[in-house]
Amino acid sequence: MSQTQTKKEYYQGVGQIKFEGTSSTNPFAFKHYNPEEQIGGKSMEELLRFAVSYWHTFTADGSDPFGKATMIRPYDRLSGMDLAKARVEAAFEFFDKLNVPYFCFHDFDIAPEGSTLAETNRNIDVIVSMMKEYMKTSKTKLLWNTANMFSHPRWIHGAATAPNADVYAYAAAKVKKGLEVGKELGAENYVFWGGREGYETLLNTDMGLELDNLARFFHMADSYAKEIGFDAQFLIEPKPKEPTKHQYDFDVATGLAFLQKYDLADRFKFNIEANHATLAGHTFEHELRVARVNGMLGSVDANQGDPLLGWDTDEFPTDLYSTTLAMYEILLNGGLGSGGLNFDAKVRRGSFEPEDLFYAHIAGMDSFAVGAKVAQRLIDDRVFENVIQDRYASYNEGIGKDIVSGQTDFHKLEAHAFTLTDIQNKSGRQEQLRHILNQYLLDVQRP
Amino acid sequence: MSQTQTKKEYYQGVGQIKFEGTSSTNPFAFKHYNPEEQIGGKSMEELLRFAVSYWHTFTADGSDPFGKATMIRPYDRLSGMDLAKARVEAAFEFFDKLNVPYFCFHDFDIAPEGSTLAETNRNIDVIVSMMKEYMKTSKTKLLWNTANMFSHPRWIHGAATAPNADVYAYAAAKVKKGLEVGKELGAENYVFWGGREGYETLLNTDMGLELDNLARFFHMADSYAKEIGFDAQFLIEPKPKEPTKHQYDFDVATGLAFLQKYDLADRFKFNIEANHATLAGHTFEHELRVARVNGMLGSVDANQGDPLLGWDTDEFPTDLYSTTLAMYEILLNGGLGSGGLNFDAKVRRGSFEPEDLFYAHIAGMDSFAVGAKVAQRLIDDRVFENVIQDRYASYNEGIGKDIVSGQTDFHKLEAHAFTLTDIQNKSGRQEQLRHILNQYLLDVQRP
Amino acid sequence: MSQTQTKKEYYQGVGQIKFEGTSSTNPFAFKHYNPEEQIGGKSMEELLRFAVSYWHTFTADGSDPFGKATMIRPYDRLSGMDLAKARVEAAFEFFDKLNVPYFCFHDFDIAPEGSTLAETNRNIDVIVSMMKEYMKTSKTKLLWNTANMFSHPRWIHGAATAPNADVYAYAAAKVKKGLEVGKELGAENYVFWGGREGYETLLNTDMGLELDNLARFFHMADSYAKEIGFDAQFLIEPKPKEPTKHQYDFDVATGLAFLQKYDLADRFKFNIEANHATLAGHTFEHELRVARVNGMLGSVDANQGDPLLGWDTDEFPTDLYSTTLAMYEILLNGGLGSGGLNFDAKVRRGSFEPEDLFYAHIAGMDSFAVGAKVAQRLIDDRVFENVIQDRYASYNEGIGKDIVSGQTDFHKLEAHAFTLTDIQNKSGRQEQLRHILNQYLLDVQRP
Amino acid sequence: MSQTQTKKEYYQGVGQIKFEGTSSTNPFAFKHYNPEEQIGGKSMEELLRFAVSYWHTFTADGSDPFGKATMIRPYDRLSGMDLAKARVEAAFEFFDKLNVPYFCFHDFDIAPEGSTLAETNRNIDVIVSMMKEYMKTSKTKLLWNTANMFSHPRWIHGAATAPNADVYAYAAAKVKKGLEVGKELGAENYVFWGGREGYETLLNTDMGLELDNLARFFHMADSYAKEIGFDAQFLIEPKPKEPTKHQYDFDVATGLAFLQKYDLADRFKFNIEANHATLAGHTFEHELRVARVNGMLGSVDANQGDPLLGWDTDEFPTDLYSTTLAMYEILLNGGLGSGGLNFDAKVRRGSFEPEDLFYAHIAGMDSFAVGAKVAQRLIDDRVFENVIQDRYASYNEGIGKDIVSGQTDFHKLEAHAFTLTDIQNKSGRQEQLRHILNQYLLDVQRP
Repeated sequence: MSQTQTKKEYYQGVGQIKFEGTSSTNPFAFKHYNPEEQIGGKSMEELLRFAVSYWHTFTADGSDPFGKATMIRPYDRLSGMDLAKARVEAAFEFFDKLNVPYFCFHDFDIAPEGSTLAETNRNIDVIVSMMKEYMKTSKTKLLWNTANMFSHPRWIHGAATAPNADVYAYAAAKVKKGLEVGKELGAENYVFWGGREGYETLLNTDMGLELDNLARFFHMADSYAKEIGFDAQFLIEPKPKEPTKHQYDFDVATGLAFLQKYDLADRFKFNIEANHATLAGHTFEHELRVARVNGMLGSVDANQGDPLLGWDTDEFPTDLYSTTLAMYEILLNGGLGSGGLNFDAKVRRGSFEPEDLFYAHIAGMDSFAVGAKVAQRLIDDRVFENVIQDRYASYNEGIGKDIVSGQTDFHKLEAHAFTLTDIQNKSGRQEQLRHILNQYLLDVQRP
Repeated sequence: MSQTQTKKEYYQGVGQIKFEGTSSTNPFAFKHYNPEEQIGGKSMEELLRFAVSYWHTFTADGSDPFGKATMIRPYDRLSGMDLAKARVEAAFEFFDKLNVPYFCFHDFDIAPEGSTLAETNRNIDVIVSMMKEYMKTSKTKLLWNTANMFSHPRWIHGAATAPNADVYAYAAAKVKKGLEVGKELGAENYVFWGGREGYETLLNTDMGLELDNLARFFHMADSYAKEIGFDAQFLIEPKPKEPTKHQYDFDVATGLAFLQKYDLADRFKFNIEANHATLAGHTFEHELRVARVNGMLGSVDANQGDPLLGWDTDEFPTDLYSTTLAMYEILLNGGLGSGGLNFDAKVRRGSFEPEDLFYAHIAGMDSFAVGAKVAQRLIDDRVFENVIQDRYASYNEGIGKDIVSGQTDFHKLEAHAFTLTDIQNKSGRQEQLRHILNQYLLDVQRP
Repeated sequence: MSQTQTKKEYYQGVGQIKFEGTSSTNPFAFKHYNPEEQIGGKSMEELLRFAVSYWHTFTADGSDPFGKATMIRPYDRLSGMDLAKARVEAAFEFFDKLNVPYFCFHDFDIAPEGSTLAETNRNIDVIVSMMKEYMKTSKTKLLWNTANMFSHPRWIHGAATAPNADVYAYAAAKVKKGLEVGKELGAENYVFWGGREGYETLLNTDMGLELDNLARFFHMADSYAKEIGFDAQFLIEPKPKEPTKHQYDFDVATGLAFLQKYDLADRFKFNIEANHATLAGHTFEHELRVARVNGMLGSVDANQGDPLLGWDTDEFPTDLYSTTLAMYEILLNGGLGSGGLNFDAKVRRGSFEPEDLFYAHIAGMDSFAVGAKVAQRLIDDRVFENVIQDRYASYNEGIGKDIVSGQTDFHKLEAHAFTLTDIQNKSGRQEQLRHILNQYLLDVQRP
Repeated sequence: MSQTQTKKEYYQGVGQIKFEGTSSTNPFAFKHYNPEEQIGGKSMEELLRFAVSYWHTFTADGSDPFGKATMIRPYDRLSGMDLAKARVEAAFEFFDKLNVPYFCFHDFDIAPEGSTLAETNRNIDVIVSMMKEYMKTSKTKLLWNTANMFSHPRWIHGAATAPNADVYAYAAAKVKKGLEVGKELGAENYVFWGGREGYETLLNTDMGLELDNLARFFHMADSYAKEIGFDAQFLIEPKPKEPTKHQYDFDVATGLAFLQKYDLADRFKFNIEANHATLAGHTFEHELRVARVNGMLGSVDANQGDPLLGWDTDEFPTDLYSTTLAMYEILLNGGLGSGGLNFDAKVRRGSFEPEDLFYAHIAGMDSFAVGAKVAQRLIDDRVFENVIQDRYASYNEGIGKDIVSGQTDFHKLEAHAFTLTDIQNKSGRQEQLRHILNQYLLDVQRP
């Protein structure tokens, strides 16, 4: 079946989304995201590497813990493999109209689970073949894939940390297949999100065994990827809680402790999600910074949370402070390497029309484009970098230089301290720095 | 000056606090804490290793961000070194009346800062000598000491992570002195709490340099301690925030990542505070468990927070669920080694009378005694351990045993998964386990 | 069809749950809840008025935002009205075995929605008739019913606060039917929980109109109830958020402001849920106290939240501090009148076996029985009441008496203030009071 | 002593702060706040009515619960009344250089407490006279004053809700004096912030009596103000917690319930603080909206909190989303009447130089100027108002009109519901609305 023969338009009334600049009032146009525009020597498309999340955009139905599906989708009357195939068609039309370079999925998003593992794998194979065919003519590539090991009841107590060895084996089979799919579709990364890898209550939990098992699982995944020649970057995605009471990959630092302990730090980086950061009590930029200074910044799940709500709202990112400070870290990191900005974001349950999917992605892409432009100018003008250089200047000479170069000890430092009659600190100037950040933000439309 | 000659009674009207059992209505008596009573082969005194915090009990004045000092203390009219000396006298009277085996202090709690570092050190020396003299006849020993590197304005931007090398050197001098004091007084541990080791805003912060410097500082502290033959356990005390926006030692896992990265994990353990745990989004027992499974459980700051307040309320621990689950981890850890249960807890601003200090400590000590008794019975009866043994039984044979012993790979696991027609999980029984916990708690007074 | 003829046992292996006392180790027995035991002049059954929630216990399937149904239920293979009928049979068997005096439901829990409103109402009628028949021989009565106006997509933007007048009319039809059902089954209360009565974003919300419409709705509901002679107590159930970003009935005080403004305070009381209280930043007992001092304490949704999770976990209540302090307020309120303690609580997703439903309810009922016993003893002994009497004694005489009786003004008060040379406050004794609370709790098993 | 004779310059090196526009790089200039520029028919100065907080800017010293004073101020070497007088001189220089129309203070900020109430009042009188003299030649007026009834130990358990009638009387004397001072200085409002009007633990608290007494206090305050002809608007300032565990004026809705119950709603409005809103679990704009739709929006404490910190950080407002959405409510309210935008905001402890006070106020004033401009354009273009008009259009005709006009009942509504074959809801378009908000924000510099 050729793609051109059967071409059906799913998102009727929406054409190609193009850059029209800030004076445009066309809701189906980018005001800031201009794929070819250069930022710091890269085109926006190369720098931002946007990806569409298959689950939120093509699979999710708007249900929530208190309510049923609300989403109106162009393939609503289909089911089973017919539905799965229609979603592929719709997805590539969506990618094309939005002009995004990447997409991401869980196995479970693209194909229905069968009554046996074998049937599930066959379903996946059918859809993967279809996607591969589409990808021959589409610009959109697979940023990463992953295995959904949290929705089916078998994962009720975890997958690679399950108290049940059968479940663990089943999880291995799922990830094995996922790695094969990733290789088949040329995925640039493979993500591990530990939805139920954690605990509900310590009273029935052997934390030590569970974490040891998780590490064994990752080592086996690494071995198998090597075996099949799949060299994608492995990514852990921290989240502190939800659906489990406590998830083992709480935040970047927790993930790092785990990877270091089990000799996995060379093989993994982090896929950092804004809303997961705030649920863990951190800013998005904090998590990016921690990953960056440890050389572990892999990819980003671009969304935002509601600071007054205690669950993962996965909103489309429109907070320009957040996109600016995130892009600041990403630019200082030299970009995201094989990673990208995946919109792990869902339209609100009340934004149930297909058009909202476009509005939301446009809002997100424009917001990151603004953030990238502002961040690059801040870097080019060394606004904060000069502040930092000046603030830490004492480490470039004298006792400070000795400290940094390891040429000192408590005796010498104490001797120095005794010579100090008055220690001069400098104001941190936080209020002024925020004001400057505002000025750079409001100036973004200045050519 | 001999202690006996000048003996003045500070806490008049309060005598020796003794164990009187659950039928006692004497507010100045223990109902559960019986120092000689055996729990799991140790006396309560040996197991619990209670310590009084010098700062909350002898130095704090009840002021808060919105209000002035309220505490009525028996040395209120004194100042300077006279005050410092009176506090030592009062402290040892308090330790004696309460019959606690340990105390803890910051340098700044025991002696006023002088106009120079040299004068400060001399002030410390005077008090340390006085304490050493008292300790000859007192049963109360020094659990740990530490350096206050957060109160004086010089620490405004941090100490061992300061952007100012002079401040860093000054911090080294303070810790050098602290290590000497610890050795002099026979401290069993030395604590590092990073009050302002963190950041207010990332906009002016070089996180990488600050963390590198912090690691260098710890290595130098280690070298100096070795040099002077001070073999106390080093302890890091995690806290996520307050006073700084973000503290580097966010929680146990974050501290562990840091120690591993900088090759310090063999030298340090953690001093875990209940209220710091909850501020980081964890239960107290979670932090203890994480430390335990990593062999890093050093000591405990015994208090509790208010789950609805977002700051460190440092309340005296009276929640029997918390004390039970904490003691459960401590008992499974084989006790606290050189650590102890330090009441890093303050009487409420409105509990301003000296008697409240006794009531509060009695409440805390009784609460941990109850917790210890309940936890030991739970362990003796293998209530939760049997649940766990049964829950993870599949790892003792077949494919599960292969997983744990590293005798498998994704091929074998997938092959096993294909053989599974139906995976049987077991109920986690959380509600029943909590009910049983209640039964054990309410049974504690049964002989 | 007579009940006795077709009697099928749904919860096989579970017999009548009886009181066996604290020495029992039978997991299917009450250790503390003894229906006939007297507390403050009422039997426990009369005082506690426990109710089973139909939705959590018979309808819910264990799905969560990240996972599918897990619950194993004895009617799992049925659907539609057959399922609805089987649930009624199971429910009354459950009520009987648990020996609870009340149950509660949403219309949607008991009967499936039809393709039209008329069909939905017919479905409801069938089940209501069946229930009425069962209630002739069962001791279990209907504490309250309510209308589910949050699950179906039509309620996406609210019901009685919807921006769509058709939706509003539909909501009126649902509540009209609900009032009729309540009358038919002899419900003692009717509950309004505003699941989606609130807003997602202020940007598209006319808060003034929505609240005015809500008040109109309540007045019409009142009129209709009067018209049909349904004199149940009307109850508003506060919750601050979830599923909506902001719910109008944030907490008791917010609800009170609304009721007062719209002249509805005489007709409504509050149905207070523990977990909703904590989500709003309050303790459970705070919300009960606020309702009590305003004469608005109507009924209770008995559950508990996880203080570290930001959503409504609806856990079975096992925290004995919470049950004690709740019962303290309820006892001082003279009981709950026509209200009761409804277990708006769900077994964890991992507690998926039918037995867990019994374990969980037993845990909850025992926990409230303990709480009631402890609270009654605290009241009998005037433990806290004497503290309060003493603490406020200055309002019984002199200037204090003038203040309370309205016999003073700023001139007289200032004149009094000028006479004060020293103001004597008393310690609040918080630590001691908590210790005493522990003692009363641990003494509960003393005869 | 005349002001001109002794003119000393306190803030040397800082001249008059002027509007220089967005191209200015002068840190001591406004980029957006142009006092004469018109917004919606008012000058910015008339609309925004900025006020400087005396306590944060002239009295606060940078101390926090973990650290001592850090602030460097030009009157640091003075004490007692000399200090108080120097602060007045500095303050009016600051007001003048910043060109603000208003200031605010607590009695305690401007003059030291004496050893007696009489002496305290004399101290206040001296400073009030001095201020009055300054105000003759200054443009800066008193927006509001208030009494500090939370810092001195006498207020430990509250002031107008104290369990001690002497304290209550003392509080009355303080407010009596405050009202007299307000009248003397022409204050346009008088603020009641209940710092310790709440409770630490319910175990020792008679909530009913305390709230009754608080209402009596307010009625007496009203009577006295009338007696002396002081017709300033009375304002309650909600805050949920800190310093007390629970404050009675939790949020606007709670305050409203109180005022309604005690027949005080006509006399009071609310002074709404952004950071207090977020501590209560609300957005700033939510609290403003609730006050607005109830006709109770009085004045604003303009600051911002840190969404990840659980205490009142009182940061200078620089979040342009927050200032825009706040000004949106204020503009729809027709301005603030006698209220204003008071910077209840403090420079960070690390921003300890006098210049930071200017930088911070400039940042705050520019941020609100931006917010006002964006909000006015949104209103002028009816961006959100058209969305709302369209969204609620069904209430303008047919059954919707009947609902709003009270011409319907449950019978008619049910009849209408039965006629509905399909209910059509519209997308809420949240993502698009946020994108448009961004566009308006980024367009603000377009002429």
